[in-house]
This record gives sequence, structure tokens and C-alpha cells, in this order.
Amino acid sequence: MKLPGQEESDVSSAYENVPTGELDSGPGSRPSPSGSSDTDSRELGVTKDPLLFIQLNELMGWPKALEWRETGRWVLFEEKLEVGAGRWSAPHVPTVALPSLQKLRSLLAEGLVLLDCPARSLLELVEQVTGVESLSPELREHLQSLLLQRPQHLIQGTDTRLCWGSAHPREASHDEEAPLKEQRQNPLRKKLPPGAEVGAVLAGELGFLAQPLGAFVRLRDPVVLGPLTEVSLPSRFFCLLLGPPTLGRSYREMGRAVAILLSDPQFQWSARRASSLHDLLAALDAFLEEVTVLPPGRWDPTARISPPKCLPSQHKRLPLQMQEAKSPSAWRRARFEHRRGHLPHEPSPELQRTGRLFGGLVQDVRRKASWYPSDFLDALHPQCLSAVLYIYLATITNAITFGGLLGEATDGAQGVLESFLGTAVAGAAFCLMAGQPLTILSSTGPVLVFERLLFSFSRDYSLDYLPFRLWVGIWVATFCLVLVATEASVLVRYFTRFTEEGFCALISLIFIYDAVSKMLSLTYAYPIQRPGSPAYGCFCQYPDPGGNESQWTRTKPKDRDDILSMDLGLVNASLLPPPECARRGGHPRGPGCHTVPDIAFLSLLLFLTSFFFAVALKHVKTSRFFPSVVRKVLSDFSSVLAILLGCGLDAFLGLATPKLMVPKEFKPTLPGRGWLVSPFGANPWWLSVAAALPALLLSILIFMDQQITAVILNRAEYRLQKGAGFHLDLFCVAVLMLLTSALGLPWYVSATVISLAHMDSLRRESRACALGEPPSFLGIREQRLTGLMVFLLTGISVFLAPVLKFIPMPVLYGIFLYMGVAAISSIQFTKRVQLLLMPAKHQPDLLLLRHVPLSRVHLFTAIQLVCLGLLWIVKSTPAAIIFPIMLLGLVGVRKALEWVFSPQELLWLDELMPEKKSIPEKRLAPEYSFSATGVGVWEWSLQETEHEFTGVYSGSQDIVGLSLNCQMLNQLGTWNNGSRLEGSWPRLQSPS
Amino acid sequence: MKLPGQEESDVSSAYENVPTGELDSGPGSRPSPSGSSDTDSRELGVTKDPLLFIQLNELMGWPKALEWRETGRWVLFEEKLEVGAGRWSAPHVPTVALPSLQKLRSLLAEGLVLLDCPARSLLELVEQVTGVESLSPELREHLQSLLLQRPQHLIQGTDTRLCWGSAHPREASHDEEAPLKEQRQNPLRKKLPPGAEVGAVLAGELGFLAQPLGAFVRLRDPVVLGPLTEVSLPSRFFCLLLGPPTLGRSYREMGRAVAILLSDPQFQWSARRASSLHDLLAALDAFLEEVTVLPPGRWDPTARISPPKCLPSQHKRLPLQMQEAKSPSAWRRARFEHRRGHLPHEPSPELQRTGRLFGGLVQDVRRKASWYPSDFLDALHPQCLSAVLYIYLATITNAITFGGLLGEATDGAQGVLESFLGTAVAGAAFCLMAGQPLTILSSTGPVLVFERLLFSFSRDYSLDYLPFRLWVGIWVATFCLVLVATEASVLVRYFTRFTEEGFCALISLIFIYDAVSKMLSLTYAYPIQRPGSPAYGCFCQYPDPGGNESQWTRTKPKDRDDILSMDLGLVNASLLPPPECARRGGHPRGPGCHTVPDIAFLSLLLFLTSFFFAVALKHVKTSRFFPSVVRKVLSDFSSVLAILLGCGLDAFLGLATPKLMVPKEFKPTLPGRGWLVSPFGANPWWLSVAAALPALLLSILIFMDQQITAVILNRAEYRLQKGAGFHLDLFCVAVLMLLTSALGLPWYVSATVISLAHMDSLRRESRACALGEPPSFLGIREQRLTGLMVFLLTGISVFLAPVLKFIPMPVLYGIFLYMGVAAISSIQFTKRVQLLLMPAKHQPDLLLLRHVPLSRVHLFTAIQLVCLGLLWIVKSTPAAIIFPIMLLGLVGVRKALEWVFSPQELLWLDELMPEKKSIPEKRLAPEYSFSATGVGVWEWSLQETEHEFTGVYSGSQDIVGLSLNCQMLNQLGTWNNGSRLEGSWPRLQSPS
Repeated sequence: MKLPGQEESDVSSAYENVPTGELDSGPGSRPSPSGSSDTDSRELGVTKDPLLFIQLNELMGWPKALEWRETGRWVLFEEKLEVGAGRWSAPHVPTVALPSLQKLRSLLAEGLVLLDCPARSLLELVEQVTGVESLSPELREHLQSLLLQRPQHLIQGTDTRLCWGSAHPREASHDEEAPLKEQRQNPLRKKLPPGAEVGAVLAGELGFLAQPLGAFVRLRDPVVLGPLTEVSLPSRFFCLLLGPPTLGRSYREMGRAVAILLSDPQFQWSARRASSLHDLLAALDAFLEEVTVLPPGRWDPTARISPPKCLPSQHKRLPLQMQEAKSPSAWRRARFEHRRGHLPHEPSPELQRTGRLFGGLVQDVRRKASWYPSDFLDALHPQCLSAVLYIYLATITNAITFGGLLGEATDGAQGVLESFLGTAVAGAAFCLMAGQPLTILSSTGPVLVFERLLFSFSRDYSLDYLPFRLWVGIWVATFCLVLVATEASVLVRYFTRFTEEGFCALISLIFIYDAVSKMLSLTYAYPIQRPGSPAYGCFCQYPDPGGNESQWTRTKPKDRDDILSMDLGLVNASLLPPPECARRGGHPRGPGCHTVPDIAFLSLLLFLTSFFFAVALKHVKTSRFFPSVVRKVLSDFSSVLAILLGCGLDAFLGLATPKLMVPKEFKPTLPGRGWLVSPFGANPWWLSVAAALPALLLSILIFMDQQITAVILNRAEYRLQKGAGFHLDLFCVAVLMLLTSALGLPWYVSATVISLAHMDSLRRESRACALGEPPSFLGIREQRLTGLMVFLLTGISVFLAPVLKFIPMPVLYGIFLYMGVAAISSIQFTKRVQLLLMPAKHQPDLLLLRHVPLSRVHLFTAIQLVCLGLLWIVKSTPAAIIFPIMLLGLVGVRKALEWVFSPQELLWLDELMPEKKSIPEKRLAPEYSFSATGVGVWEWSLQETEHEFTGVYSGSQDIVGLSLNCQMLNQLGTWNNGSRLEGSWPRLQSPS
Repeated sequence: MKLPGQEESDVSSAYENVPTGELDSGPGSRPSPSGSSDTDSRELGVTKDPLLFIQLNELMGWPKALEWRETGRWVLFEEKLEVGAGRWSAPHVPTVALPSLQKLRSLLAEGLVLLDCPARSLLELVEQVTGVESLSPELREHLQSLLLQRPQHLIQGTDTRLCWGSAHPREASHDEEAPLKEQRQNPLRKKLPPGAEVGAVLAGELGFLAQPLGAFVRLRDPVVLGPLTEVSLPSRFFCLLLGPPTLGRSYREMGRAVAILLSDPQFQWSARRASSLHDLLAALDAFLEEVTVLPPGRWDPTARISPPKCLPSQHKRLPLQMQEAKSPSAWRRARFEHRRGHLPHEPSPELQRTGRLFGGLVQDVRRKASWYPSDFLDALHPQCLSAVLYIYLATITNAITFGGLLGEATDGAQGVLESFLGTAVAGAAFCLMAGQPLTILSSTGPVLVFERLLFSFSRDYSLDYLPFRLWVGIWVATFCLVLVATEASVLVRYFTRFTEEGFCALISLIFIYDAVSKMLSLTYAYPIQRPGSPAYGCFCQYPDPGGNESQWTRTKPKDRDDILSMDLGLVNASLLPPPECARRGGHPRGPGCHTVPDIAFLSLLLFLTSFFFAVALKHVKTSRFFPSVVRKVLSDFSSVLAILLGCGLDAFLGLATPKLMVPKEFKPTLPGRGWLVSPFGANPWWLSVAAALPALLLSILIFMDQQITAVILNRAEYRLQKGAGFHLDLFCVAVLMLLTSALGLPWYVSATVISLAHMDSLRRESRACALGEPPSFLGIREQRLTGLMVFLLTGISVFLAPVLKFIPMPVLYGIFLYMGVAAISSIQFTKRVQLLLMPAKHQPDLLLLRHVPLSRVHLFTAIQLVCLGLLWIVKSTPAAIIFPIMLLGLVGVRKALEWVFSPQELLWLDELMPEKKSIPEKRLAPEYSFSATGVGVWEWSLQETEHEFTGVYSGSQDIVGLSLNCQMLNQLGTWNNGSRLEGSWPRLQSPS
């Protein structure tokens, strides 16, 4: 996690090639095994404890052939040796029976505890452990040789089980202290960070012992204990639990109990610092105070619990001196969290008003400039290649599909070529200059609807459209510059989740609707031939040798071209296909000449294939099949692979499906106009002033469209490191507005759906870890190169016609459908709509359902649905001119909701608006609290799709609602009651 | 669960309308909340403790407005009141912090414990509880009025929150003791069985108390405590935990701890019988001895754990006297389990050799006769209607598809009509008489392959086929009768899972292959028109008025009919569709006349649609959407709905897809033969003797085919109540063989895939229970009516042509594909094949993977794959004649595997063959055992798809492998060490 002050020095990509595990403490680091991240500890100014790998060696084969065998290991979670199968189990949450812990406690209390033992080898250690005991000499010798015996380890990965000989006493020569080959080759070694230490636990039944023998040793200087452990790391702890077999198998369970204790961050912290047996027992008691108990009647003790997605915070469990030590840096971190997330009490730095003209813009430029080199370096990853191909195909499909539409709607004023050119120029310029370079510009969406209205208005009043449009563009750019100058973008703070989701849902639905309607329009272009039509087939009719083709037909001349004419009479004909027929001077006749069979259904098949394969390949990442590398490639390239699959299927069948056709000539679509639009044309001079009125509406629309999209893209859950640039983005849009208006190109703003797809194809995730830690979302590859490449490719697409003609349009429509569905699935609104269809008892255990009555949740969803319906209706009717006002109205509706819903409800369903960021004091009903010390706890749950996290702090008089991610939770941990830590801890409840 | 002796008296359907929950103790009862099933307790001869509903009323609002509010409830699992949302949480495994239990223990030790309190009303109870305390009179009065105050309950279902007034002291008049309207209307009441009792826990902070006040009361006679509890059931336990608020919220947690204790079967058992405080504390300590502990560093205490699919067995936790009491009945039950499952030490009763001629047949008839009336009564359920429609459509599709094939292969000897007639007659007769009436007969599969070989042989040697076939049939029937007489069916014990799965996989693959190849064959029948063909289109060519149509063409006459002739010259033509053209005396000309466009792709779409919809609708049952009733209907009728959807789609588009066409005339397909086959025909007399040789091979095939299918259908996991009838089934097949040979109809044996689909469509499941108990599989609706109806409908299908012609064949092929996929997915072999594709660390935690090395698992799977491949190759080549021997070879391969795999490995991968049922003594490596009493435990895991269960007992010197279902586990529980219970408990390790 990066702090604001570190931004310049710390380039995010620098950490990317570090192996996972403890090392990944760069930007977006995950919860670390010790429960607190490295950075965290670094900030605390306390020594960071090394990671502890714990291994349980069990004594087996009593009485015949004694041997040590490693049967369990722990880092974060427990892995058990499946003796029969000869493999390590999947990591699981360790569980232990309470009596084992209690017996362990009494054994430790009676046994030998050596803290800061100076032993320098296993031999010395064994002598120390056995020497202090009141053992008979021969027993001691027997025991020593047993302890020096090489244990049997299962090194997984090479699938060779290493048996280092049983009952073969090891001689303590110097070279045997060196790591064995097998230890060095252990793949586990690579997963443990440098500096990791080992805790070795030896447990078992030993018949010749009269009494239990327990020893707990902390070595002063960690030392490699020869082949005792499976990895040749220095051991810090050594624990021996032996005894006569009268107690059954409890030594094994006691050994597990020690291992579980040592793997607990809090106990380990104490054990490293304990100065006496008393400290150790106190730590054990503190552990027992906090354990969770599962009743035997409702839980099978042998059941294995999979590792939770998010580890519980360990901060509340740290000793008080550590909590106090962290305050100054915690304050800084909290500030950072506020910038990232939606912490209520102050806006993020990007959205703080400077009070100077263009102050926000200057700040944005300054902030983004420092990231500029990394914006190109960070793109060096194969995933970016997939993103470029995917988004490039989406962009040109968009340009062709809606470019054609645009040209049609505006009488050829802007056609496909303008669409290509404009997209390339505007997109590339934006990617190079903008505050959020992940944004993909597009000329479609609400702005296109508005332009169509503008065009039909200018046609109705016989205006010269392009000059009129130029003036509208000039005015819009002016208004936008005013908005930039006055830092109006800080108003995006009023765009709550309600507004974002309403807009995102609308845009996604338009995307889905367009994809499906484009697909269905193909069935009109290539009609399905149904039986029972009166005329049928096609043949090639030639003019007679004398040149008069009508001579031979008995029907009247006027019927000749009627394709439904059934009776053609005597003709000179052949069965050549229509193109060949025309080449030979004939005329294709009949309904069959104008239809291409099978295309409609094949298109539908391709559409469905590409959609479902894109969905399925995306889900390969979470499947159990294939190695992670394969799954990652399949998932990252899912859209490109789905397109390739569709193209392959189409090529295999070889039918004449509609393909991606790009223009071949480089000239404006409207004949007779140059590339530069004349400022007045045939329009009266005052129209340039009157254009300010539609420009005002368009400015509102562009502001809303651009900024809501920017807010969505800068959501906290994406963990962007380089921050947003709302002012800079708007400035770029204004400049491009001027440019495109002057050149007669389409107008561009940020495209929500394609930009989301772009970000989604650039997700960084930690590699899966064998130790049971789930892979976590690290952030987005924030860079300018993919966008730039996309638009450069768009620009040169005019020359790529021979390649692009192999791509069938239905395949691309299927990908469009996928993008729309992916975008609409990503919002909470969709989940709440699904709740409408679920009976209460089957609903998922969402936090908001725990805190808001279901009827209120449904009411909120219903209001959103009504808003969405109204927006859709307005968009589809001539009233679309007021669409910008309607979008603005969303913010008003959200404001009005404050009369309907209580602030607590809005906190859960939405988020609070700026002036309502503090909630009036109200003692809430008590929440879950297991804390025995009177400190409140964070209640939390993970939502399925995202690592997004919503938590609430309870236990004090105030409530603070937060939208945090999993890692933040681990960092922030549990805050103590405000009143207790006032002064040293920021009061999150301020200001009123 | 039914015992053998109960079979006659106990009709399975009689229990079906009883609400779920505790009542469903009829056949296939589930694990009951108290951890042991009702039947179980009934057998034990001990008083069955009533179910306990536990409710926690919490005191809230201190100090301002004190009120009681129900915030938690327990039956099996915990439900928590979500205060903010005003709803009950989903049931979850209760967890509690250890200190709460310890504090509770000390409060109980110091507080008031009244066992067998004689109070008869809440007022008396409150007086008793407050009277004994050393409280000041005004404090006592205050406390009494507080305790009599009506608590606030959330009655869910009606969504009305009932606030019975706060701080309003209740007067103890008599009529208020009567159940309140709200209590009576509580839907929870219906879910609790009659006789259920309540445990009421009251906890909270009370500022005016100087000391903690704890009271635990067991009422002598349970009494309804007015509106104290949300259901008006008599209360047995009453627990009060109040104290000053200095201790934070621990009273609430202590209240939860008491409730969790009371919901534990073992503690409850003890608390009901405790005679002193000491007993109670001992029970609490026993509870603590057995709890599972989750470490605080690796588990968030506020996380909720979903109820496990299978509750842990409580038998090992019962006191010794109860364990001893159950021995006699347990012995009987164990016998029953052996019959049902695959317990190794003795065969199930159906497969025990009587030693008399036809002894097995007589036993089968006797056993099945007693079920005969119920075989019709049990069919009265709407689910059966769906099964009839589904299987009927599958059967007639099968009859038409392969009937046509049959006719083709056998030169019309048996055509579609024979197929229909034979299916109807043979199927109906089998359903009426057979031992396993769920079986669906079919003429396809290996027997069809064999018949084709027989036919080509008779053609090669110019034999009269039908008489020859008659003799083969007579010999086969004879051989089969000999097999019945000698009780050869007991040999099915040698058909282990290896044989079953090999056969089932083969048959399923044939099904899938046939479905796909039939679908693809449509693309040949309706070719896709590709561009670039030299000729194109279709027109209608008339003869010239003079009658000579060639007169006008310039091409040579021999080319006229060449559809590829391009140049037709001068013709008299029209564009009428081909049928109309022919009607008017013309000839359709051109390649377009012979192709119907769009059909191939539409067929493919219909095929995929019906397949995916059948899959999706089947999965609706486990989705979160829609009420359970809707989901159940959608899931039960999934195939029928998918067919209807396909038909609707087809009808909507109106294209001429190939439809289900049934024959219209009732006559043998081979012209000139009667319905009865003459015994000799043109064949020499000795052929009737020589027919014995092929008949021998066919007999082996039929025996294997029939009996492996029967073994698969009678698998323990289907929990059939009425048992199998291997001898009777084979007898029926023999009789039908004779009949069909004499009539020249196809030969019939059991069809694995359709029979499995039949059973799958008749699954009975318990309704989902609000209390957290997962719905469980109860068994199959075992009856004869669905099969009978299917074959009656098949018989009258000849007259249903006008209805059936609306059903497109591709839709039915899609359903076939679904059936094949469903059948092959249901076997363990498929899961092991999937393991081949999974990296080791992503593999599911299957028990066999814990006990068998992965390489051995893969080896076993590879051997199965090779066997399957060989069978497939043999089946597809002329060597198919030895296919019966190959099937028999499967058993041999399995036997040979004993040299490759150890018995332990085979136990996990397969099951043991009869003579190897005991494993040589070998001390296994220690397994998980948390038991503190030295008793071994059952290790178990649930596999995802089925409630099938595989467990192993470890902890003694012997090992017994079992294939048990979840419920059996609960019933059998944990057995003690063989040596301890020898004599009173069957030694499962016998005989050697």
C-alpha cells in the first residue's frame, strides 16, 4: 500500500516480479500471514517478526521400528500429511480439541522451558533438552539417538518420498549440518520469504518413558537443525512432547496444539518476547480467551474448513504499546484510505477545491506528470496484448456499427470513415493527455442521441448542419472550460452509488439492446425462407439473341421484374449463381436470388457461441481444471479467443456471413466538403450565438456522462494507484470537442462499458499460493499504452481491410453482448434486483440485508428501476432533448430519498451525500460482539464477485459506514472506542 | 428407515404428507435434530426426548425503556435476529467464545438451580425464581414485573413485527395463559412436531442489580409460559441471566452459550436427567471436553458457518447405558444395512443362494408380491406425470430412431411398427411382472449390435432369417431359464463398481454418440448451401404445349436432368415451389429444389436449446431464485419443459424441420409375413440345433447387460425400499425373449440410461426446512404405474400421429444427449477422469484421495479408460461377436487388478470381491482422531452430487470399508473398538 508521500519514489511495477507470499508488499499487497502487512509493521517502527514455518514431526512405529515422520505443517493454515495417499492435504483452518490445549498447558507448566537457548546445532540442542531432565543415562542416550534420527519428509512436487533411513542414528559431523540436496530442492523453500524461520514440533508416544517429557525451546540465535525440518531454514522454536502411550494419541494432538499456537500471530508475538514460563502460559491463556468454540453436536471435529477469503484482523489483538506506537502513521494511512475509498468525513484529494482558477486542473497535471514514465513501463505484460486486441476489436466494431448509423442519421455528414478517423485521433489524444488513461472514448451513447436530435432540428429549419454543429461545439468547449476553471468537477461528490449505478445500468442496457437488435436486424437482411411462399428459387434469365429479352415471355412486361410473378412463360435461362449470371449479361430472377439461405441461423449461432465462450473462458480462472498458467491465459484472452473461435467456425463453414468491412477511401463521407468545416456556411450570423442554448444542454450531458463514467472507473474497489484526474479529463474532452467540431468528426466522451471492459482485461491478481492464502485482486495495470495502441490500430485499420474481412459481425455482436452483461453484472443494483426474485430464506447473507429491512431494500431497488425506466423512455422518444436534465434529476431523486430513507438505511444501500456525512447520534441495537475487552468489532462480509468489502463499526455510540476492500480491513483493523483513544486516533465520526 | 420385519405393515407413501422436520420418520427419514432418528430411539426402547425449541429473550433499552426482545432461536442451528433488518438470519452453526461458557459455568455454580420445579404458570415460576434470592422486597417486585413483561417477537412469514407494548406489566389472569393469536398464527409452530418443548433463556444487563443473578430451572411438568415464547408450546427449561452492566455485553453471550448448550443433544439429554447442580456442571464439562476450537488468528469469530450437509453422529456421545440398550435392534438394523448397501461380510438377502431349484425366483416373487398394491398406490404424485411424459417421449424416440435402423439393418424384418409394438408389449409386461419395475426395456444397445451380426450371418449363408432367429430366441430363453433355476444371478456379487461403471460409461457414451451422430446426419439430409457452387436455385420447368419439353432446350437431352447443368437454354418455366410445380405437371429443376435451406442450422439450434434448457432447468432446484414449489416443478418437469420449449420455438419459426413421424398402418414391415414366425421356414432342421451356439453368446450378453443394469439401478445410494428381484427380472426377460422371437419383434433387455433417467425423474426429497436442515434425498418413488403408462402410451402412439408430428426430432436428440450426459456424470469414474485434468492442489478433498496415492488413482482410472476403449473398439468392428465375452472379461480384469492394487486401495477405488472381503491385518497409519476416550471415529466426507458417503472406521487393528449414505452414518454412528463390544456388537471384520 502506498502513501501519498511515497508516490514519486515508488513505482508500482517494480514489485511485480517478486514471488508471491510475504514479499508482495508493494502496491496492493495482500494480508500477510502474520495478519498485518509488512508495510504496516515497517510503519510501526517496531521490528518485524520473521514468518514462521511450523512443522510437526511425529514419532511412529512404536514399539517395533521407531521413526520420525513429518505429518503436519503450518504457515497460514494447516496442511496435513495424508499418510495413505502420500500427499499433503489442501490447506485448511486448523482446529483442535479443547482438552489437547489444556493438556498441553499442564505439560508445559511441568516441563522444561528454555528461552533464549544458546544451542548452535541439533546435537547441542538435544543435549540441552535431554540433559536437564532427570533421566537415567542409558535412557538419555537412547533418547538422544532417537532425536538425532533423520525424520521422513514428504517433499511434494517431485513426487518422490524421501526416506532418510529409519532407526539410523545421525552423526553430528559438520558437513551434515549443511542443507541436504532434498531440502534445497524443496519447492516450498521458494514460497517462503527470505528470513523465514522454522518452528519444529516433535511429538509422539515412547513406551520406555515412565513420565511425559515436554520441552519448549526458543533458540537465542536461530540455527539450521540439520535434516530435522523439510526446509533448510534456521529454527527459532523447538518443542518436544513425548510420553508413554497410556494417554492414547494425545501427544500428536498436543503437538498439533503447539503448532496451532505458534501459527497464531498473537501467541507467536508473545512467545518471541516471553521471558519466563509465566509469560508463555499467559499467552496461552490469552489465546484461549479468544478462541471460537464449535459445539460437538452441530459440528464434526474432523471436518476441514476451507481458508476464509479474508483473514480476520489481528490489530485488536496486538498489545497496547504496539497500538499506540502506530498512531502517527495510522493517521497518514487513514488519510490515504480516504483518498482511495469513500470515507465519509472528507473528500479525496482529487476532489478538494483549491479555490484558484484552474487550480484543480493544475493539480491534476502535476499529479499525473509524476506517473507519466510509469504509464508506459507498466504496460510491459502479455495481458496488455490481450487487452489491446479485445478493446481494438470492440472499438472498430463500435465505429463501424454506429459510424454507419451516424452517417445515416446525419445524412452522411459523418460516416464510417469520419468515425474511424475521429476515434483514432480523439482516443489517442485522450490516452496521451488524460487524467484517467484507462478511459476509452466513444461517440455513441447519449451524446449520439442528442446529435441526432440536433440534426433533425437543423434539417427541419433548413440550416447548414456542420457550421451550426461547429458553433454548438465551440460553445460546449467554452462551457466545459468554464467548468474546469471553476473546479466544478468537485461536484462529482454528489454522484453517489445511486447515480453511478443508474447511469451504468442504463448504458449497459443500451449496449445489450444494441447488440441484440443488431443481431436481429441480420435476420431481416438475410430472411429465413419459410415454406408456403408462392414463389421460390432463382434462375438466370438472358436476353434473347436478338437483344429483346421480353420477346419470349408470355407475361406482361410490367410483371417481369416482379419477383413474385409465378408464371414466367418461355424464357432463355440457366442456373448460374447471380454474380456469374450478371457477368454473362443475364438477370437473376426469382425470390431465391435475393436471399442467402442459412446466414440468419448461422449468425445467431455465431452470436451465441462467441457470447457463451467469452463467459465460459472468463470463468475458467476459477475452475479446478488445468494448471494456473493455462487458466490465467484462457481467462485473460477470453474475448480474443472467443472471437477467434467464432472466426474459425465461420471460416470452416465458409458461408457468406456479414463481415467487418472497413472503408477503403480516405475522404469525407459528405461529398463536396473539405476536412475543415467553414464557420458560417449558409447560416445567418446570429445562429452562432443561438447555438449556445443547445450547447448548454449538451454541456450538462457531457459533464454528467464524462464525470459519472470517471467516477465509476475510479471506484475504490479497482484499487487504482495513480489516482483520478477529473478536471484534466474534462479539459481534454473540451479540447477534443473543439477539434472534432472543426473537422466534422463525431463528438467523443468516455464510454462506460468499453472502459470497464478495458479495465477488466487489465486486472492484476496475486498468484495462487500453496499455503492456502486465496489469490487476491491487486489492482489494474494503469498505463497509457494499451489505449494508445488501440487507437493507433484503429487509425491504420483503414488499410487492414484484407485481414478484418474474415471477422464476422455476429461474433462481434456477441462480444458486445458479453461486455454489456459483464458491466451490468458488476453493480450492486443488479444483485438487489435479483433479491426481488428470491424468497427471503434463500437470500445470500449480504450485510445490507442484516441491517436494512427487506421491504426498504426492495423499495430502494424499485425506485432505481423506475428511474431507469424513465430514463430509457426519455432516451427513446423525441423528449430525449431533456435527457441531460433527467440525468441531473438522478442526483435530485437521490437527494429526495433522504426524506424516504433514514441515513442509516442510505448508508447501507447507497452512501451518504457530502452534507449528510455525519449521522445523528443514535444508539443502534447491539451487533455481534465477541470481544471480551469491551472493544467494538468490525462486522464484515465478502461479496462474491469482488473483493469489495462493506463494514460497519459498532460498539460505540457512533456508527461509521465504510466501503473498504479486504486488505484495508486488515490494515485498519478494529478501532477502539472513540472515547478511549481520542486524541491519538482520528475521530472518524467528525465533523457534524 | 424400514426394518425387514416391518415391510408388510409399513407403506412408504403413508408418511409422505407429513410436514417436514421431526415428523418425517417414515421410510428414508433424515437425521433428526436430536442427532439420532426417531426410529432409532423407538427401537432403543428408551423414552424419546421431545424436540427442544430454544429461544433467547434479551433485555434491551437499559436504562431508559426496558423491554425484552427475542434475539435468537435454536432448533438444530442458530437463527439470529437481524435487528436493523427486522428479519431472522439464515440458520448457521452456532459458535461462542470460550470465556462466555466459562463465565456461564461460574454463574450457574453460584446461582439458583431448580430441577423439577413444580411451577404451573409464568407467575409461579417468576415467584420461585425471584423468591429464593436474597433480594430486597422492592427489587424483587421490580424484577417480577419486569419478568412478566411481554417480550417482543418477530414473527416472520407475515412480515409484521409484533410489539406487545413495552414496559407494560402483564397481569397474570387465566385467559392470558391461553395462546395469543400471534403465537397461534406463527408459521414456525407448524414446523415443530407435536410434543415439542421450549427452553426459554432470558438474559441482559440490569443496572439496579448489585450482583449477577443466574437461575436455571427445569420444570417438572412443561407448561406454556404465556407470551414468553414465540410459539405457544410448553416450556421445559427456563434460564435467567441478569446482572449489572459492568461486565459489558457478556450476559447476552452467556445467554447464547446456555442456548447452544441446550441445543446440544448430549447436554440436553443430561440436563433432562440431572438430579443436582453437580450433574449439570458435569454435563457442561463434558461438553467442553468435546468442543472444537478455532484459533483466533485464522478464523473470524463473527463469520457464520453454513449448516453442514450431514450432521455428526451423536452415538458415540450417548451415555453407555443407552449404547448397550440399543444392541439387539442395532443388530437387526445392521443386517438391513447389509442388504441395502455393500457391507462386505455377507451378501444382501436378494443375492443369497437358497440351494433349491428356482429358489431365488420363488423368493423374489414372494418378496415383490407383498409390495404389489403399494406399487400402484405410490404412483399418486404429480412428479409421476412428468416422469411418464419424459420417459414416454424418450421411449418412442428410441423406438423410431433405432426402430428404423433396425428395420434397415434387418431388411425390414423388424421395422418401426414392430419396434413400437414390441416396446409396448414387452415393456408393459415387464413393468407388470418384474422384480424391478423401474426398469425401462429397450431393444437398442449391445443386443442390437449382436442382432445385426446375426442378420448379416444369415444373409451371407442365405438362411431364412426370422425362423433362424426364432430358434436363437428359444435357446436363449432356455439358457436364461437354466440360469434362473440355478440361481446364477447371485453371481452379480462379482459385479463390483469397476464392472458397473465400465458398462454404464460404455452405454452412456453410445447414447451420447448416437444423439450427436443423429443430429449431424440431419446436416447431410438438409445440406447447407455454400456459395461458389456452379449451379444455383430452382425453377419449375413445364413441357411445351406440344408435350415435348426438350424441344426448347439448347442443351443435349442427356444433360437435362443433370442438376448441375448450367445452361438450360430456352425453357417454359415458372417459379412455383416444387410441390405446386409437380401438381401442375411441371418438373422442379435445379439444385435449390432438393435442398431445404435453414433446416440444418435450425436443427442444431433446437438440439442445443433443448439440451441446455434441460440442464439449466434441472439445476433450478439448487438456485436461490423463486419459491421452492416453483423450483421443484421446474426441476421435476425439466425435460418435458425443454421439449415443449423446443416445440414452441420450432412452431414459431414454422420451418419444415424433421418431425416425429409414427407409422400409420398396423402390419408387419416385411411384406408377406404374418405376425407369427413359422418355426422352420426354408431352413434345414439342424439349424434349430446349431442356433444354440450363437444363443450361448447372446445369453451371456443378455445376462451381463440385464444384471449389470439391475445392479446399477439397485445401488445403495438410491435407497430403494422394495428391494431388487434379479431372478425374477431374468425370468421375465427369458419369457419376453420367447414371445418377441415368435412374433418377429425386437429383443428387449433393460436399458441403463433410460432407466436411470426414469429413476432420476422419480426422486423424492424432503422439503427444505427453515431450521437449517438441508433437504435430503429420501428415495425413489418405487411403483409400476409410470412404466406401465409409458408403454401403454407407446402402444397407442400409432394413433397419436397428429399430435406427435409437432415434435421436432432434433429436440428429442438434445434430450437424448442430456440423458447420456446425466448418466455418465453420475458415476465416480467420471470424477476420477476429471482428476486427470486437475493439478493436485486444486483437486477436491475426496476421501479416496486422502487414502490412495494419486498415481495409483490415475493408474486405476487409466485401466478403466483402456477397458472402455477396448469395449468401444470391439463394439464398432466385426469382432463385436465376442463382445459378450469382453463384458465378462471386465470381471476378469477386475480380478486381475488384485495383483496390481492392494486390498486397501481397491477398497477405496472400487469395492472388494466376495472371497476377498476381509483384509489381512495391517496396522494403518493413524487417522484423525479427536476422541479423548480412545474410541475410534468415523472419517467421512460428502461427495457433491449425491448423498453418497464413503467412510472408514479407524482406530482399531482392523479396517472396514463401507459405502454408506449420510443417514446410515447417523444411524450407525461410531462403533466402539471391536474388542470392547465383542459379543454384543457384530464383528464386522469377520469372516476371514
